[in-house]
Amino acid sequence: MSSQAADLIWVNGAPADAVSALERGLHYGDGLFETMACIGGRVRFLELHLARLARGCAQLNIAGPDPAALARELGSLGAGPARCILKLILTRGPALARGYAYPQGQAPTRIVLRYPWAGPAVEPAAGVRVRIARLRLAENPALAGIKHLNRLEQVLARAEWDDPEVAEALLFSRSGALISGTMSNVFLVRGASVLTPRLDVCGVAGVMREVVMAVARDCAIPVQEAVLGAADLDAAQEMFLTSSLTGIRRVGEIEGRILAGDTVSRRLQAALARREAG
Amino acid sequence: MSSQAADLIWVNGAPADAVSALERGLHYGDGLFETMACIGGRVRFLELHLARLARGCAQLNIAGPDPAALARELGSLGAGPARCILKLILTRGPALARGYAYPQGQAPTRIVLRYPWAGPAVEPAAGVRVRIARLRLAENPALAGIKHLNRLEQVLARAEWDDPEVAEALLFSRSGALISGTMSNVFLVRGASVLTPRLDVCGVAGVMREVVMAVARDCAIPVQEAVLGAADLDAAQEMFLTSSLTGIRRVGEIEGRILAGDTVSRRLQAALARREAG
Repeated sequence: MSSQAADLIWVNGAPADAVSALERGLHYGDGLFETMACIGGRVRFLELHLARLARGCAQLNIAGPDPAALARELGSLGAGPARCILKLILTRGPALARGYAYPQGQAPTRIVLRYPWAGPAVEPAAGVRVRIARLRLAENPALAGIKHLNRLEQVLARAEWDDPEVAEALLFSRSGALISGTMSNVFLVRGASVLTPRLDVCGVAGVMREVVMAVARDCAIPVQEAVLGAADLDAAQEMFLTSSLTGIRRVGEIEGRILAGDTVSRRLQAALARREAG
Repeated sequence: MSSQAADLIWVNGAPADAVSALERGLHYGDGLFETMACIGGRVRFLELHLARLARGCAQLNIAGPDPAALARELGSLGAGPARCILKLILTRGPALARGYAYPQGQAPTRIVLRYPWAGPAVEPAAGVRVRIARLRLAENPALAGIKHLNRLEQVLARAEWDDPEVAEALLFSRSGALISGTMSNVFLVRGASVLTPRLDVCGVAGVMREVVMAVARDCAIPVQEAVLGAADLDAAQEMFLTSSLTGIRRVGEIEGRILAGDTVSRRLQAALARREAG
């Protein structure tokens, strides 16, 4: 999916292209975000995005926006184009004084950016190519799972390559566990087992990861969350990535190794398509 | 030091109170900051702040601003009041497209905020009270030492207490090493040894930490950088915190334990005052 500039921005419910220079989102990355696919004016898996946002707000003690009002706002922004991408940034709000401390109950700042739907480049039939990042993710249970704005690790990992043929990089944690891609979650298939990394010390609990786990359950393909290492990656016969924007992407090659397996990916892609059509 | 609102803000060299909603500093915390004391229009330890900023730019591959031009700008902003605080935020610039990837050579965004000098509350003669944070710092050598904008850990640790009598919280890393305060570095004194945590896996290499280590060297009080644990903290007879704004603050009490030692702190405070006067 190629990247384009935002074509519409709202701040706190009104068109704007700027935010306060005091924003705690800018000063500290003190906030959360969601990136959503919007099709025919409907945000795909809206309830799951709102639920994750609410979990993040609870974890960071940010006063969450009213879900119904936020849903209406997202609907308004996404109403025009047949398809678009909506990115919501929710910060704790402007820093009224210097320093890390914040007042209780501050009204957060809501920034919604709309981007054109770039459409996935035609997905190679053999699957996408991925690499393994040199950067390792730091571990902190207090920040794990939620989609917060402290994303320098992802920026650094994404800067490790510029080959457009490489779709994603897989990241290990500092202690050696496979965690995710820079912008996707990862699933490994080995025999009858489908495995995905536990995300209790780092990583983002993706909405599409959750959807795919539910779809797999319905297909009687149980997915196990586990602490996975390099050996598990090496032993995988099949691998796929998930994200809200790209759905399920099968990995065809990792660091030169060809992954021919595609049975589970195809079954789950088909089941996901049925669920979305239904 | 109590906290007040900014009274002057410049963005890219001109007065402004807002930044682009596309700022990578906002979207990812993709940038750096410096907080500086400015006295009589002169930024204290300017060269050290500029050097740390340059190290951060190199580590994050951000095109650093011209040091001479930046120094002039800081001088202009700080010229009015007898004393003030200047906070510089340098981001990679606006995100011209969606996603973590960034174009090479993008001009960064420079935000300078001026805050009134609140003046330290009269420092208790017995030293300040500190606590130990429950939150543990994640470890990532790729982000260690520099003053980047991913500061959610500090926000969370600072939210653990609201007793105004507690001046600071000390943070341990996930693997159990003492690292720093939320907004200061820490030094321990035990017998003839002065120790300060190594900052190669997490923490910020403070400008005042560097100044104090140089001042100590001149006083023939060598400071050793070491991996320190809870036992080292327990064994300390004397302890002090350093930051650009507050200089050397002696710790008088940590989690109820009284620290009576003050010999080294006082010697270094006096030597620091001489250096600044000279």
